Amino acid sequence: MYKIRKCQKEDVPAIVAMLANDKLGMLREDYREPLAQKYYDAFEKIDSDSNQQLAVIEDERSKVIGTLQLSFIQYLTYQGGKRAQIEAVRVHKDYRNKGIGKQLFAWAINEAKTKKAHVVQLTTDKKRPEALKFYESLGFKASHEGLKLHF
Amino acid sequence: MYKIRKCQKEDVPAIVAMLANDKLGMLREDYREPLAQKYYDAFEKIDSDSNQQLAVIEDERSKVIGTLQLSFIQYLTYQGGKRAQIEAVRVHKDYRNKGIGKQLFAWAINEAKTKKAHVVQLTTDKKRPEALKFYESLGFKASHEGLKLHF
Repeated sequence: MYKIRKCQKEDVPAIVAMLANDKLGMLREDYREPLAQKYYDAFEKIDSDSNQQLAVIEDERSKVIGTLQLSFIQYLTYQGGKRAQIEAVRVHKDYRNKGIGKQLFAWAINEAKTKKAHVVQLTTDKKRPEALKFYESLGFKASHEGLKLHF
Repeated sequence: MYKIRKCQKEDVPAIVAMLANDKLGMLREDYREPLAQKYYDAFEKIDSDSNQQLAVIEDERSKVIGTLQLSFIQYLTYQGGKRAQIEAVRVHKDYRNKGIGKQLFAWAINEAKTKKAHVVQLTTDKKRPEALKFYESLGFKASHEGLKLHF
């Protein structure tokens, strides 16, 4: 079991490197050193929002090897229920198939239960069939279509 | 064109009545008069969160005939981008096919652009094929699977 903890400002470059090192992420991220300020600005907004939990997972040498963002959203629906939403999941390329994604999800699902969410939800790009299989293996049901309108 | 405005506490029963008057909503809501406190508690949490906009649309006689919740979520992904998410859309049964949903979406998309979101996203239950068609007519692309894990 690796250690999962809250993301600190110092972790942001390692997270963005993982986001960018991906067939879809490489088209939309801007990873360079030093990292652009816009990523730090985004981190500050996430970090100061009590509904947001940006997590990292690290190996024995404290190297960041995975990340996941968990957001809580309050609705009137489901009798005034709160939803937990997972986004921006990445595991470092050198650490795949070691159960790290599974550990991150176990943490997120446990957090969601602790904080009394009634559902955990996420969307996954149809171009990632292997991700869909992974989520289904955790008990998620693909009951919905996920729609996007990009500006 | 009907008037769209911020939801007030007094509108909550009318919204819950619409949420419950629906083939899926009737199974999960608890609409009775007086309305249960849990809905008002949820409203207070939404109302006090600057990332949340709960909107209602009203007719000429100030009757609430539709609702939509717009939430902004900050991520590191997409170069520190902010997403706008739409959920809990309902139009009163007596006011369907009058362009009210379209007007609510035009408002939400405009709000998302004004607040510099890079994408508007939503999920729709696969049991609502007519809703999917409506969203696609607005330009949304069903590029993702929407997964849920209910507790």
